Amino acid sequence: MPHPVISFLTDYGWADGFVGVCHGVIALGCPQARVIDLSHGIAAHDVRAGALTLARALPYLPLGVHLADVDDGDRGPRRDVAVSCGDGRWLVGPDNGLLWPAAQAAGGAVAVRDLAGSPWARVPVSPTFHGRDVLAPAPPAALAAGAPADEIGESIDPGTLRTLAVPVPERREDAVVAHVLSIDRFGNLELDAGPDDLAALGITVGGRICVAAGPHRLEVSVGEMFGEVDRGELVLFVDPQARLAVAVNRGNAQMRLGVSVDATVVLTAAAPAPAPAPAAR
Amino acid sequence: MPHPVISFLTDYGWADGFVGVCHGVIALGCPQARVIDLSHGIAAHDVRAGALTLARALPYLPLGVHLADVDDGDRGPRRDVAVSCGDGRWLVGPDNGLLWPAAQAAGGAVAVRDLAGSPWARVPVSPTFHGRDVLAPAPPAALAAGAPADEIGESIDPGTLRTLAVPVPERREDAVVAHVLSIDRFGNLELDAGPDDLAALGITVGGRICVAAGPHRLEVSVGEMFGEVDRGELVLFVDPQARLAVAVNRGNAQMRLGVSVDATVVLTAAAPAPAPAPAAR
Amino acid sequence: MPHPVISFLTDYGWADGFVGVCHGVIALGCPQARVIDLSHGIAAHDVRAGALTLARALPYLPLGVHLADVDDGDRGPRRDVAVSCGDGRWLVGPDNGLLWPAAQAAGGAVAVRDLAGSPWARVPVSPTFHGRDVLAPAPPAALAAGAPADEIGESIDPGTLRTLAVPVPERREDAVVAHVLSIDRFGNLELDAGPDDLAALGITVGGRICVAAGPHRLEVSVGEMFGEVDRGELVLFVDPQARLAVAVNRGNAQMRLGVSVDATVVLTAAAPAPAPAPAAR
Repeated sequence: MPHPVISFLTDYGWADGFVGVCHGVIALGCPQARVIDLSHGIAAHDVRAGALTLARALPYLPLGVHLADVDDGDRGPRRDVAVSCGDGRWLVGPDNGLLWPAAQAAGGAVAVRDLAGSPWARVPVSPTFHGRDVLAPAPPAALAAGAPADEIGESIDPGTLRTLAVPVPERREDAVVAHVLSIDRFGNLELDAGPDDLAALGITVGGRICVAAGPHRLEVSVGEMFGEVDRGELVLFVDPQARLAVAVNRGNAQMRLGVSVDATVVLTAAAPAPAPAPAAR
Repeated sequence: MPHPVISFLTDYGWADGFVGVCHGVIALGCPQARVIDLSHGIAAHDVRAGALTLARALPYLPLGVHLADVDDGDRGPRRDVAVSCGDGRWLVGPDNGLLWPAAQAAGGAVAVRDLAGSPWARVPVSPTFHGRDVLAPAPPAALAAGAPADEIGESIDPGTLRTLAVPVPERREDAVVAHVLSIDRFGNLELDAGPDDLAALGITVGGRICVAAGPHRLEVSVGEMFGEVDRGELVLFVDPQARLAVAVNRGNAQMRLGVSVDATVVLTAAAPAPAPAPAAR
Repeated sequence: MPHPVISFLTDYGWADGFVGVCHGVIALGCPQARVIDLSHGIAAHDVRAGALTLARALPYLPLGVHLADVDDGDRGPRRDVAVSCGDGRWLVGPDNGLLWPAAQAAGGAVAVRDLAGSPWARVPVSPTFHGRDVLAPAPPAALAAGAPADEIGESIDPGTLRTLAVPVPERREDAVVAHVLSIDRFGNLELDAGPDDLAALGITVGGRICVAAGPHRLEVSVGEMFGEVDRGELVLFVDPQARLAVAVNRGNAQMRLGVSVDATVVLTAAAPAPAPAPAAR
């Protein structure tokens, strides 16, 4: 691996230097690695947002080591793991569900190592900065440098990995009950529903759909992209992750609809345009 | 090109992972490239701010491929292009004016390729994430790896490129009517006027100038830098892009003057200090 | 040095392209360097925050050139320096205290060069962007490329370097008067006190401590990490820099206590739990 790739995702933010410190530790252990920062702006402790962002990115990243840290703040000891996946990737981070969707997307967890007591850790390990002392030094350095996996930590049963619950849409006779999975910088609402749910409603691109969220019940265009509607107009489209999303062209759908993550969004076929009234005699 | 440089500027923000995904795609196509992030904090859809930031940075970047994406949200299809410039640089992004000032700064557009149907694109191309599927994979990968340019896309007439209108200052007999071109993190106001406009008013460093913006009409020092005035004082200086700028030392000129981008700022010579009153008899 | 490391810390923010421009200049002078961004989110002009962030990170960074720029906005000329440290590191930045704690952490300033008139500077030097024209081009490029140090600038007396005052805790008979040194993204309050101050109060992990800040006087748990208390509960712990810190698990201690940097925080032993009342007859 002349140019091993290490991706890195956290909720550390960029301002305090936490990310830079981890980059330093990675560079110490693996000078030739290329580090790709996926995001360090995951909301504090938002394990699910981190997990979804990581899983989404994986298909676009070279095979490598994918380091992630979002602590859930739950009581009790934290277990850090290195997960070897079916497609050759390694995922490294806390075992709190953060790595789960990525592991599924990468062929499943083939082998898992517990990083407690890893010889690669920087000692003394700070109880509150495992990212620096356990995650950044050990696995990326070790793996990227070709160390045998059994030096990384003790083998543990992949079946013990924490899973992560994500909302799933529910199909009813004439509706799809979807949920807001995530909201991006532009205020676009990504739903858990997909193109097949749209098809199940008999709706195609170019048509209209009824979107109900909170007090709102709106008929919107179904398009391929924002630019197909006027500025300020709502549009439903298939987003880059092949999920349905609601956006306002050059506006903010989150603010328009007043919803947040996990909100229920009910999709139904829009009523057909009323037949023109018979001409008055 | 052992270490090709790819610069990257967008309005994606850093939190959602969009930037990291593009880095991944670039790394897949061009493992040895060095990617320089110019900014991903351009205000959403602010094509002009992106264009100015890119053009400003160009003289300080190694020759390479300069990737940029700020969508204008305008209705109608978007055209993505790769522009070969007179000085050897390639500019890659949407043809919406974003690349125009940079192309001018780089010796003009010598040849332009339309990226529609580029064999380098990742298919299926997401209609709303050309950055990932068209821009990041195709041109940087192709160019940096030395692929012949005619494989990138069909040749199109450079004369059809969208231009970008930027404000220009207007000189009147005893005034320069300038405009706020951009505002930076520090609240410094960059004007479209330059040192020659200052000279035209007969004003030199060390003197005073009258700055009128909105309801304000203030006499301020003309300095070489902030540190020449006391904290909280206004100063006009020639900024690092050789444009006139208004700042408050350790303060925020935008908030002080209550202006935003495109605001008119009228510069005139400050009235000479009144002659001292004759001593009372 | 096949892969020289240059770390980079500023208060430029990420949005305006200032950081990217400096990366470009570094890449021009030192194409093979690996640049690690420590932070560019230091509060504008906050020399102390920048200095502490840099000094904290240093032990985790490969030996290299450590570039930093936070201007204090003080009146009068600014002196830029390259400081050669006892452990082989170079620190490059303004001589305003920003480099001082890092120099102390790196074995002290062994030799100092004044960058005024450095042949490596980009001319004309912008009076307001030395980062681009003096810091980024000269020292990193020169040093990382192996240029003899005496070409960098004139030698000056290390004894003339500006120091930086940081708060220190005061031990009283039954209290430690500490101060908030910094506050991170999570709202955690880092104090200037350390584990020895805790020991001096006779308090150990697992115990309780009384924390007085502003109008608040609270008894909190002393733990090893956040996860030892319930969500929303305060905890005092030894942070990753071996300093005492106050946090709220999954909450924000800054907001809870309403304090800011430099606030006084008085630590005392918590009153022993009252003896249980005698059982009623």
